[in-house]
Amino acid sequence: MTENVSAASLICDLAKQFYELGWVTGTGGGICIREGEHVIVAPSAVQKERMTPDQMFTLSIDGSVISGPADASLRPSECTSLFMAAIRLRDAGAVIHSHSIHAVIATLLFDREFDISELEMIKGIEGMNYHDRLVVPIIENTSRECDLASSLEEAIKGYPQTRAVLVRRHGFYAWGRDWVQAKTHAECYDYLFRAAAELRRLGVPTVPLKGVNDASIPTRPAEPFVRR
Amino acid sequence: MTENVSAASLICDLAKQFYELGWVTGTGGGICIREGEHVIVAPSAVQKERMTPDQMFTLSIDGSVISGPADASLRPSECTSLFMAAIRLRDAGAVIHSHSIHAVIATLLFDREFDISELEMIKGIEGMNYHDRLVVPIIENTSRECDLASSLEEAIKGYPQTRAVLVRRHGFYAWGRDWVQAKTHAECYDYLFRAAAELRRLGVPTVPLKGVNDASIPTRPAEPFVRR
Amino acid sequence: MTENVSAASLICDLAKQFYELGWVTGTGGGICIREGEHVIVAPSAVQKERMTPDQMFTLSIDGSVISGPADASLRPSECTSLFMAAIRLRDAGAVIHSHSIHAVIATLLFDREFDISELEMIKGIEGMNYHDRLVVPIIENTSRECDLASSLEEAIKGYPQTRAVLVRRHGFYAWGRDWVQAKTHAECYDYLFRAAAELRRLGVPTVPLKGVNDASIPTRPAEPFVRR
Amino acid sequence: MTENVSAASLICDLAKQFYELGWVTGTGGGICIREGEHVIVAPSAVQKERMTPDQMFTLSIDGSVISGPADASLRPSECTSLFMAAIRLRDAGAVIHSHSIHAVIATLLFDREFDISELEMIKGIEGMNYHDRLVVPIIENTSRECDLASSLEEAIKGYPQTRAVLVRRHGFYAWGRDWVQAKTHAECYDYLFRAAAELRRLGVPTVPLKGVNDASIPTRPAEPFVRR
Repeated sequence: MTENVSAASLICDLAKQFYELGWVTGTGGGICIREGEHVIVAPSAVQKERMTPDQMFTLSIDGSVISGPADASLRPSECTSLFMAAIRLRDAGAVIHSHSIHAVIATLLFDREFDISELEMIKGIEGMNYHDRLVVPIIENTSRECDLASSLEEAIKGYPQTRAVLVRRHGFYAWGRDWVQAKTHAECYDYLFRAAAELRRLGVPTVPLKGVNDASIPTRPAEPFVRR
Repeated sequence: MTENVSAASLICDLAKQFYELGWVTGTGGGICIREGEHVIVAPSAVQKERMTPDQMFTLSIDGSVISGPADASLRPSECTSLFMAAIRLRDAGAVIHSHSIHAVIATLLFDREFDISELEMIKGIEGMNYHDRLVVPIIENTSRECDLASSLEEAIKGYPQTRAVLVRRHGFYAWGRDWVQAKTHAECYDYLFRAAAELRRLGVPTVPLKGVNDASIPTRPAEPFVRR
Repeated sequence: MTENVSAASLICDLAKQFYELGWVTGTGGGICIREGEHVIVAPSAVQKERMTPDQMFTLSIDGSVISGPADASLRPSECTSLFMAAIRLRDAGAVIHSHSIHAVIATLLFDREFDISELEMIKGIEGMNYHDRLVVPIIENTSRECDLASSLEEAIKGYPQTRAVLVRRHGFYAWGRDWVQAKTHAECYDYLFRAAAELRRLGVPTVPLKGVNDASIPTRPAEPFVRR
Repeated sequence: MTENVSAASLICDLAKQFYELGWVTGTGGGICIREGEHVIVAPSAVQKERMTPDQMFTLSIDGSVISGPADASLRPSECTSLFMAAIRLRDAGAVIHSHSIHAVIATLLFDREFDISELEMIKGIEGMNYHDRLVVPIIENTSRECDLASSLEEAIKGYPQTRAVLVRRHGFYAWGRDWVQAKTHAECYDYLFRAAAELRRLGVPTVPLKGVNDASIPTRPAEPFVRR
């Protein structure tokens, strides 16, 4: 994958797949892919499952538009400044933004941090193992997507091991060294967000109390669901 | 999109997509698209995911048939008079009717108005922002679809900001200035109907009590689900 | 649709669609289509989403094999005698058998009859209107599928208005005058089985107590779910 | 199916299908198919729905690599030693590994054995009938997938009738005499894992107390969900 045209096609393919997963309905969510010193970004407010490669923008790493689609009514995704935060701070090769309802529910079950342990899918996140406690910081949503940038950056800096940030009542951002790892991360996180709600419904703590890391785990209330 | 043939093809494409979303199974639901002074409408009681462009009707804005399919057994969708209400009163370019089970459940969780606030997907509805309280009027169902027209018109007039009307134990109508916006609206509303049921299940109010618009929000009962 | 080849192709198409709906996984479930005095039936115990038209059997109305696939290891679907009951007793043009989990759950929520009223999708069943009480008889499952035939016939005779029979802990059979109506019926019934479980979860009776037909409706226990 | 190229293509097709079922997201899960004295296995840590036949490995029954893809960065699936256990001990023709969330939940509802009876889909498992009690052993998960091999082998030996083994908080392995039967088994087991959670939610025991095998069934607690 060394040509712009490939990344542009790939974004269209992946967006179609993400639409079927319920991540980018209603023109929400999106994905960007880095190509060396350029970042390919989809336009804002378009139907994500019907995009074509000629609608993509090419941006520099600092966010300025290098080239864009012929249709002058299109603007780069509103997520752009957030995508750039993960690219700049983590050297991400791709960033995915999802409005998955599982992520939204996860932000209502946990306060400032989502955490889970002892599920096989945790191993899909770079650097994590089955017995590790996977933590995802949750930031508060803002009226305008671009106003999320500073708290997203703070969360990325405050949680050096995370590959995702949850946004309360909104969704999540996940990234990876390339689009394959970003997609793998997003799929694993989404599975874990969904699993957490199922565990709570069963009265099973998301971090087992008598596990390997027992001593380091704060006690959780016993009721199945916790309101924030 | 300036030719009838395009709108007719598009209706077939979208209907297939809506079938997969569970909006138009059992021949229910539908979509119409306006073309200048004409409205393209699908036939009644056909399998929505298997329609072909040559089965579409072309109507005038007042609802009279200008041209129709060769198959004389077909009649225009029973939703036609309801579609026309949104076109006439709101200058809609497209109207979508869905039997989504999420919408039906929403009508059992709320009395005369569905309301929700502080979910990112609210921003997908024209004119609405994250902290706004999104209200969708709920009208009572009738035995015959055409008998819904007067109460639908009343709801459209009574709620000038809404882009959708829920029909109790039936589904919803949503519209937009063109088919893209109508589809975006329908996807966002459907997501919010589903989210509302999830929030209730968690004991989280759909309109936060201590939010920006706190003073204007009526107190809601504490139990997770409210029967009408 | 007047040629065998068409019905055989159609069965393969529909089976693929039903697989995606979760009705015929694990080689379960199926569909037959009548062609005048012949009935086209799929083979038993094959993957329903991967069938080809040349694998179909042509049977006479009395169930004897007129022609079959070259592969001698294939036998006609085990549902054949059940399909024939609806064809013979109701002059059905097509019969669908589904293992939908929604149907199985419905048979655990109701005793000898599933009933529901005041949902728009009820209107998708021939002869039924919104305020009618839709009743589907539930028969007990047997170890061998062919042993269901006599109780299925009894249920069909005992409920002249029904277009479907539920089988406890198994699934349902639905039919129609042709394949289009059989499919419409199956989709509407499946939606209603799912809706019934959602209503029970909310504490809403499936037949409203203060509805149009109030006097004729037996009181139901208040608890959300009733064990058989 | 007598050529390697066929099995390799088939693995790619099936993996796409399993991705849509939610069994192999995040590069998890997989499938292998035996070809006489060879076993075709997919590479580790790749996107399962985007594999191509030229990426497959050919192994001997003892697990040594006979041939592999041109891309030297690829290694055989981490499940390989587990796949080989079922092939060696049960003469399996194909083995499927799924991360289905239904399976993970099932391992939280049961202690050392999953059991269920009187559901039609039980008949999809070789040798089982409707009234039989289907038992699936549950083994504890380990940090590294290869460390599961000895407890998987023990479970296979200890439960001669089973065609699947559940792995706590991880997923399940299922097999069959050929890929068709392995897939049928996996679909039936997955359906039954999901059904078990639904039954528990309704307060219905997964093994009926007053059934045919009543005397042999241990009493179960009354609460809808049991924590391990």
